[in-house]
Amino acid sequence: MRIASGKKHGSPKVRPDRASLQSAQEIAKRTWKPGTMLAPVPAVMVSCGGKDGYEPNIITLAWAGTVCSDPPMLSVSIRPERFSYEIISKTREFVVNVTTADLAKATDMCGVKSGRDVDKFAMTGLTKLKSNVVSAPGIAESPVNIECRVKSTHKLGSHVLFLAEVVSVQVSEELLDKKGKFRLEHADLLAYAHGEYFVLGRRLGFFGFSVKRK
Amino acid sequence: MRIASGKKHGSPKVRPDRASLQSAQEIAKRTWKPGTMLAPVPAVMVSCGGKDGYEPNIITLAWAGTVCSDPPMLSVSIRPERFSYEIISKTREFVVNVTTADLAKATDMCGVKSGRDVDKFAMTGLTKLKSNVVSAPGIAESPVNIECRVKSTHKLGSHVLFLAEVVSVQVSEELLDKKGKFRLEHADLLAYAHGEYFVLGRRLGFFGFSVKRK
Repeated sequence: MRIASGKKHGSPKVRPDRASLQSAQEIAKRTWKPGTMLAPVPAVMVSCGGKDGYEPNIITLAWAGTVCSDPPMLSVSIRPERFSYEIISKTREFVVNVTTADLAKATDMCGVKSGRDVDKFAMTGLTKLKSNVVSAPGIAESPVNIECRVKSTHKLGSHVLFLAEVVSVQVSEELLDKKGKFRLEHADLLAYAHGEYFVLGRRLGFFGFSVKRK
Repeated sequence: MRIASGKKHGSPKVRPDRASLQSAQEIAKRTWKPGTMLAPVPAVMVSCGGKDGYEPNIITLAWAGTVCSDPPMLSVSIRPERFSYEIISKTREFVVNVTTADLAKATDMCGVKSGRDVDKFAMTGLTKLKSNVVSAPGIAESPVNIECRVKSTHKLGSHVLFLAEVVSVQVSEELLDKKGKFRLEHADLLAYAHGEYFVLGRRLGFFGFSVKRK
């Protein structure tokens, strides 16, 4: 079965069909020391605070992921030195705000600056969005705002993992088409890979496309 | 500070600079029930088996993420009904294989078929790559192969979370440029968002670009 197609600008010249199994077996590899090489990962702005005496703050994270479908849960990992670690440890809630190409600069700034020194909403001009369930505000300009409550924390090493349940979601109406379908593919979502931000490009198919009947 | 730029094809028409704060505050939102709306997430082929009587198998997962930098750790979440759940629970090791546009069809097939019914390496024509540390083979056609050992498991609901330490990494030499720099941006990495696969598009900048001195 042929599963690979044309190659271009430096992409691996592999065609893992049976005819070329020989060449595929010769793909040269180099061993690297263990590292955080999973890619792409999300680049999300996590907003927190707004209770327990903490002003609203924003931290940008790439160490985030979905961990369960039912109940819907996600994880975020934060270094204990970060101001948002203290806030989330204390308040036990936060909002994950999905990011887009338009928000790339704000996303990066919220990753390099500290909420101990600056008001990140003021610095970026981002708009606080009232959440439905949690006290922390979301970011209005983000197309998807995911309100979360922490269920457990796990000290792993440089980072502490927060496992959290999704308690409410808000989406931007601008991404709903005339039939009410949510067209997230029009949002120019941001991804992070190997130290750089990318915008999502062309669509390759829906989950299950490989076995769909013609 | 101006952080948003031009708009195009249906992306949110928001400019969160101060001059347009008024309009930003009017971004219409709709509340959805809690769900797995984090995006984009990775779409990785996880290979396992090759010991304890299990043949090598492949499962495609989008519920995966980096969780710690030091030691390097990642997480994968798997439904207990899946054959790979049994394999990884027993063998306590696996390989995360990063995917590309060329591998989109194989990636999708390994997500919808079960290793109880088919030999996924045979079905896809993918090539087994000998791992450095774990018994499970990697996938040679993947540009990055991340060998992992399970440190802990957490039953969350529909999915079980595996927290694992990265014990070795192999990368394809074809992505190393003449100076030895790893050009992962040439690999056409796959991402998953809202039920669909996308290829990474244009680069928007490196981490920290927003504060770099001219």
